[in-house]
Amino acid sequence: MGAQLLSKIATGDGHGENSPYFDGWKAYENDPFHLTKNVHGVIQMGLAENQLSFDVIQEWVMSNPKASICTLEGVRNFSAMANFQEYHGLTEFRNAVAKFMARTRGNRVAFDPDRIVMSGGATGAHEVTAFCLADPGDAFLVPIPYYPGFDRDLRWRTGVQLLPIICDSSNNFKVTKRALENAFEKAREDSIRVKGVLITNPSNPLGTTMDRETLRILVKFVNEKSIHLICDEIYAATVFSKPDFISIAEIIEEDIDCNCDLIHIVYSLSKDMGFPGFRVGIIYSYNDAVVDCARKMSSFGLVSTQTQHLIASMLSDDKFVERFLEENAKRLAKRYKIFARGLSQVGINCLKSNAGLFLWMDLRSLLKSQTFEAEMALWRVIVNQVKINVSPGSSFHCSEPGWFRVCYANMDDRAVEIALTRISNFVLQNMEAEVPTKKQCWQSNLRLSFSSRMFDDILMSPHSPIPQSPLVKATT
Amino acid sequence: MGAQLLSKIATGDGHGENSPYFDGWKAYENDPFHLTKNVHGVIQMGLAENQLSFDVIQEWVMSNPKASICTLEGVRNFSAMANFQEYHGLTEFRNAVAKFMARTRGNRVAFDPDRIVMSGGATGAHEVTAFCLADPGDAFLVPIPYYPGFDRDLRWRTGVQLLPIICDSSNNFKVTKRALENAFEKAREDSIRVKGVLITNPSNPLGTTMDRETLRILVKFVNEKSIHLICDEIYAATVFSKPDFISIAEIIEEDIDCNCDLIHIVYSLSKDMGFPGFRVGIIYSYNDAVVDCARKMSSFGLVSTQTQHLIASMLSDDKFVERFLEENAKRLAKRYKIFARGLSQVGINCLKSNAGLFLWMDLRSLLKSQTFEAEMALWRVIVNQVKINVSPGSSFHCSEPGWFRVCYANMDDRAVEIALTRISNFVLQNMEAEVPTKKQCWQSNLRLSFSSRMFDDILMSPHSPIPQSPLVKATT
Repeated sequence: MGAQLLSKIATGDGHGENSPYFDGWKAYENDPFHLTKNVHGVIQMGLAENQLSFDVIQEWVMSNPKASICTLEGVRNFSAMANFQEYHGLTEFRNAVAKFMARTRGNRVAFDPDRIVMSGGATGAHEVTAFCLADPGDAFLVPIPYYPGFDRDLRWRTGVQLLPIICDSSNNFKVTKRALENAFEKAREDSIRVKGVLITNPSNPLGTTMDRETLRILVKFVNEKSIHLICDEIYAATVFSKPDFISIAEIIEEDIDCNCDLIHIVYSLSKDMGFPGFRVGIIYSYNDAVVDCARKMSSFGLVSTQTQHLIASMLSDDKFVERFLEENAKRLAKRYKIFARGLSQVGINCLKSNAGLFLWMDLRSLLKSQTFEAEMALWRVIVNQVKINVSPGSSFHCSEPGWFRVCYANMDDRAVEIALTRISNFVLQNMEAEVPTKKQCWQSNLRLSFSSRMFDDILMSPHSPIPQSPLVKATT
Repeated sequence: MGAQLLSKIATGDGHGENSPYFDGWKAYENDPFHLTKNVHGVIQMGLAENQLSFDVIQEWVMSNPKASICTLEGVRNFSAMANFQEYHGLTEFRNAVAKFMARTRGNRVAFDPDRIVMSGGATGAHEVTAFCLADPGDAFLVPIPYYPGFDRDLRWRTGVQLLPIICDSSNNFKVTKRALENAFEKAREDSIRVKGVLITNPSNPLGTTMDRETLRILVKFVNEKSIHLICDEIYAATVFSKPDFISIAEIIEEDIDCNCDLIHIVYSLSKDMGFPGFRVGIIYSYNDAVVDCARKMSSFGLVSTQTQHLIASMLSDDKFVERFLEENAKRLAKRYKIFARGLSQVGINCLKSNAGLFLWMDLRSLLKSQTFEAEMALWRVIVNQVKINVSPGSSFHCSEPGWFRVCYANMDDRAVEIALTRISNFVLQNMEAEVPTKKQCWQSNLRLSFSSRMFDDILMSPHSPIPQSPLVKATT
């Protein structure tokens, strides 16, 4: 009966929850790891969360009671904030976000606060952008692998399609002009109107930043075709080592031939600050009509004024921002190093990355065959036996089987260590029959590096609760 | 060029901002009244805001520092809240909202916290509901007059239509079985598939509650046709006098023949608590599949966890809730009485109401002719010369010209007094030629009642900042 009564959207499966990406979260939820209460449970490494620098943020919060409308110092703003429902948002919020966006791009570009449009997280920002730019049936080209949530965010309620730009490991998954042209041509053959290209820079799941040349190729391409370029830059402040992050904002300033009406940035504080709960999404468009329309659409996903008020104070504090960004990068770099080194000690390579909250782990050597069936078989073993929830490349629409995304910033150092031990043991077991001597060598290395780390970890790691995912439970 | 590059939604005018409802807000913004700085400015009576009981709320906030994640007492929850992104929301938030919904309905019905789905305000809740229930081209029937924002909320991005159920002043705009059948039949003649009926109870703009009989007629009607009933109950706690508010939740409990899969409630804290800035929208559906789908869609408009945490504490405090509801009703009743009496003293009648934040004012006697052109002409005089922004009935799709919605809870007592004086003087001027003696009589009455009120007002009225509307400014 539901099928007759409800809409096609409600009765279809366009939401995309039937993916291993989400199945892994379910496995975690059924048996969640806990350092003392459930040490043999599944470790959640499928969640791109940034939990490493909350001590810095909390310290600031405690020193700035005026930033809250619920303190003695701030309560006089309570009624004005509770009542404020303008869809432009608080001026001080837009100013602070614009400034923060510039700062996370090395202050090499400026952002106009009047182009800052609010949305319900990056999720809402992507949907609003799709609603503004494309009609049902139109398509955006997206380099693969890409974030699985895009299928929900850009397609589900808009009727827009996402078509792959095929990238592979031969050039470290870089987007090429040829790949762009191929994707565009394929759409034309299928009589699908392409309305734009969607990129994620820094990349989720790759953890890499795009180089200047690639960005120039993209800008040139969208100008030639007169289509849009949506740049998801929600990982801008997670860049922890060279090369520096280059925003699309820099490229279009250098390129006088670019039609800026085609360029749109999606931003958020969910990854850079670790605030997914606060639902701060931003659309920054260089196109006046898109700013205008997106702002009207923001009525469906405005940021709570309580949160706008807090964020405005926090991000306009230069000293805090400097300290946070510095600490955040330092801690991410350290975590990355520990994890990448731990994996390499058992012969596992990852794509070399300099950003993000995850590694793109190459387990092709462990596949029984170079197929996605074999990838899924391996993934099931990793989730159910190794008891680590990582995300298989297929859930990111990766073109090659054998890659897995491993998130490392949503847990404390002890959990990382246990996860590394589990993976290492698993890899060694798989290799046992083949290279016993090599295995012993790795084992002694591992023991040494773990014990030296363990001492630091006990002193330094905060307790990091791992929240449930927003996409897991069946309802009621 | 924009028209080619952007979507049909972006280039169309489906948003409905080109309405006198919003034009009046623009007039206010260009010349906003201020008691000391701009005493001759436009008084904003087009905004249904509840600013009368903030002192009660702020007092609670100050006494409950644990409710905030930004206080010494609450900061230990900061990282957990900032990180929490589950689309079910905090359990304590859902529990508290369910309890509050029951309380505002006299605890005659209970609400299941597992059916509480979050959305970005009632705006988001309506859109999500429309996406769940109807396909593009399908229609909902809506009694007129109705809230102008519905055209944006339910139609704009969904492609759904709203068709009028014609109500008029002959029976105080009550919905009848005949009106329902007529609207349904008309849609059938036009080959439009009707997917449901949308009601607002208490009504915006009427300020009235629906009686049991009308609600029963509605439930019977949707069951007969096997279509949905969406009940917007966002003004539930604004009922300030008898008869009591009857929620649809009560009706379906009494009626064993009702298919509950057809029944959905939209709720919000924007009106009842006066928190539009916090963006707390709720979809409460009795249909499991709708709960499931709406929850997935809530990813586009989750409530900030900072706000969820605050609301959870606030609404689970029984003592506070009792006090707030009592004060709120008392102050709304007083304000209503002052305003309705002031108008009646110059011979202006309003629909007798018992709820809401506004009066439905009958100015038919002032129209040059009984047409909507005459209504607009009168409205322009009221906005530009009388300098009060009220909303003309036509913007609510009213079937009869001459009705105006006047909001009275978004200002302090002094502003109310000035607004009343302006309206009264205007009405008296219009009558001058005809009934000079009657006029003098009214004037002396007015002087008396105003001066006695003025004394109270100075002592009692808080400063009430009137924020800008979310739908006004042209962008960038």
